[in-house]
Amino acid sequence: MNIAWEHRFADRTKILMSSAIREILKFTLIPDLISFAGGLPSPDVFPIDRFKEASNRVLEQNGKLALQYSITEGYVPLREFIIGLIAQQGVTTELENIILTNGSQQGLDLIGKIFINRGDKVLVEAPSYLGAIQAWNTYGASYIPVETDEHGILPDALEKAMRVSPKFAYILPNFQNPTGKTLPLDRRLEILDICERFGVPIIEDDPYEKLRYLGESIPSLMSLDVKRLKQEGTTYNGNVIYTSTFSKVLAPGLRLAWVVAPKTVIQKLVYAKQGTDLHTSTFVQLLAHEITKDNFLDEQIQVIRKAYGKRRNIMLETIEEFFPTEARWTRPEGGLFLWVSLPEKLNTETMLKRAVEQKVAYVPGSPFYPRGGGTNTMRLNFSNASEDEIVEGMKRLSKVIKEELVA
Amino acid sequence: MNIAWEHRFADRTKILMSSAIREILKFTLIPDLISFAGGLPSPDVFPIDRFKEASNRVLEQNGKLALQYSITEGYVPLREFIIGLIAQQGVTTELENIILTNGSQQGLDLIGKIFINRGDKVLVEAPSYLGAIQAWNTYGASYIPVETDEHGILPDALEKAMRVSPKFAYILPNFQNPTGKTLPLDRRLEILDICERFGVPIIEDDPYEKLRYLGESIPSLMSLDVKRLKQEGTTYNGNVIYTSTFSKVLAPGLRLAWVVAPKTVIQKLVYAKQGTDLHTSTFVQLLAHEITKDNFLDEQIQVIRKAYGKRRNIMLETIEEFFPTEARWTRPEGGLFLWVSLPEKLNTETMLKRAVEQKVAYVPGSPFYPRGGGTNTMRLNFSNASEDEIVEGMKRLSKVIKEELVA
Repeated sequence: MNIAWEHRFADRTKILMSSAIREILKFTLIPDLISFAGGLPSPDVFPIDRFKEASNRVLEQNGKLALQYSITEGYVPLREFIIGLIAQQGVTTELENIILTNGSQQGLDLIGKIFINRGDKVLVEAPSYLGAIQAWNTYGASYIPVETDEHGILPDALEKAMRVSPKFAYILPNFQNPTGKTLPLDRRLEILDICERFGVPIIEDDPYEKLRYLGESIPSLMSLDVKRLKQEGTTYNGNVIYTSTFSKVLAPGLRLAWVVAPKTVIQKLVYAKQGTDLHTSTFVQLLAHEITKDNFLDEQIQVIRKAYGKRRNIMLETIEEFFPTEARWTRPEGGLFLWVSLPEKLNTETMLKRAVEQKVAYVPGSPFYPRGGGTNTMRLNFSNASEDEIVEGMKRLSKVIKEELVA
Repeated sequence: MNIAWEHRFADRTKILMSSAIREILKFTLIPDLISFAGGLPSPDVFPIDRFKEASNRVLEQNGKLALQYSITEGYVPLREFIIGLIAQQGVTTELENIILTNGSQQGLDLIGKIFINRGDKVLVEAPSYLGAIQAWNTYGASYIPVETDEHGILPDALEKAMRVSPKFAYILPNFQNPTGKTLPLDRRLEILDICERFGVPIIEDDPYEKLRYLGESIPSLMSLDVKRLKQEGTTYNGNVIYTSTFSKVLAPGLRLAWVVAPKTVIQKLVYAKQGTDLHTSTFVQLLAHEITKDNFLDEQIQVIRKAYGKRRNIMLETIEEFFPTEARWTRPEGGLFLWVSLPEKLNTETMLKRAVEQKVAYVPGSPFYPRGGGTNTMRLNFSNASEDEIVEGMKRLSKVIKEELVA
């Protein structure tokens, strides 16, 4: 007799639904469909030759090490490289402040694992990143969305939300996914001040920082926190847990990212990761270390900025030219996404089916609101489609929206 | 003011302790120490040149794909390869019966995530694999160790343990970690029968199956289950969740393994993995697929069997020659480990310090018993040290034991 599996699954699987992100990946398989849906980097900028040279060097010089088990924290020379990246932000770290993870998604999962008890409140921007919401659902997080304006989270709303005694606040400061919004300096300082007063840590998710196409870089919450706490020059021990990734500046297929935090937090993350998958692929870590030598990352970031900056401009030009006057959209200074608000009577989830029939796809906005809302919004990615595809795709999408408006 | 982190961690972190496995890896750093402690494959057998060729071909022919995001389930051609491996066991599977994971450890973690509610009972062999115990601690598993003899789990004891209504039974049928014991065919059938009668699924963890140095291969629990349920030739839908890995037959540094299960279970695992790390490194998956072409795995397994089989024999010869007559040990027909029981008055945990002073290391047995016991036992690995090192290391260890016996 067969097992009745449905009766054996854990309670938490009831919220382990297929996420919108996952459904989106399916669109990419339809021929001729132009997708603004994913968050995929452009494979045109992947430094494939550099990867080839690096993997040959790793295997020739360090093959036995690259293919063997290794420590959970991550490859020491690569963590040393991350220490250097963090130092550019004016933050002093040691090896024990850093853990390498399988993409930022694993960092988010491990953060959930070590912090979230069932029912714990987590403050998120409204809208916020789907992957984080999905990761923390597993641990029974209860989301408190905090109101935002065109510059991101509103300090007054954040302060009010503190009444629920949240476990932490989750913030994407630069070119937020999904909206493309960036928190200005003064607001970052206000947020740090409020969180410190209430003793609430911040999870700063910062994958896009290096993908700025115009304007000036703004210091991270982590670096501002170090200044505020007058901990400059000492080993990092602030109130911000910072995560970033190689996915957007090198290649997402590696699955390689890092978390920076006080040592006591990293220690818990290491124990949690050990039970989760022992360690990240040794070969991938050595490969990333080999590739990033000789400031290659800086070169590569220039290539990416140029390519994506151009695509961003084309998307903004075409949206201006083709979209109906009732539409509103963000003008992100970097990242991969812009965010469109249509008249309230339009529902972007039901409209998606018609868009896909017209061979264009986007992500409806409402899944990014853990407590509902945003039914008239959508996220558009401008990094993956080619310049010509952006023009053509935006024409198709405009047509769908205009038809929907008069329907 | 700094966050009081200790007060913010989730309750589950109280049992996220550093495992013995983790502590063990530290020994490998002491110069001249001969370690029988880890479960490390020998880097001497890693097919480094083959990896080099394969990574060049992957990047030349499929670079853009290899470096991009991919689906959570895993690379289709590699899952097709796994379907072929499973077919060798006489079990018919489709793509939806298989998920690729970051090593078996991630498979175990995801199994915990989708099945274990806090307080759920899990039946384990006494002793059992540390990594599984550690993974499921996170989800609040309560372990019920089932008594074993020299052939593994005792059917009578298993049947008695069914009274606790366990969520599942966890079994390593071949060359078990830590004992090296193998379940004979008749006992496998009895176990399947008991579990079916009580409606309890089996998690079959089978990393060492291909590492058999003598004797005849025994069908897996999964394949026997398919026969018993008369489901041969139909898509897999049995009561066993099966996991195996490339770690022992190719390279552990890849972090690549697979889980085979009924489709409804795989679907839950996929959703869980998506929130955990999106997907396993695309590059690693394409690399493994490229390497395994043209039956290379079979060739490689022959190389490994020859090398490890010789090391196994040397360890058994030296143990016979040097160890005190009061010691007992297993004579595994495969795998990486043998298991030693010393007179009860010896404590292998406290003895380890003296062993390390004598530049030899092992794993004390008691951490493998989730409810205590085994204080006079130890696990010895024979795959990692060279033949000369095994002889020298066993001399050192014998000396320590003999001194301890007369102390």
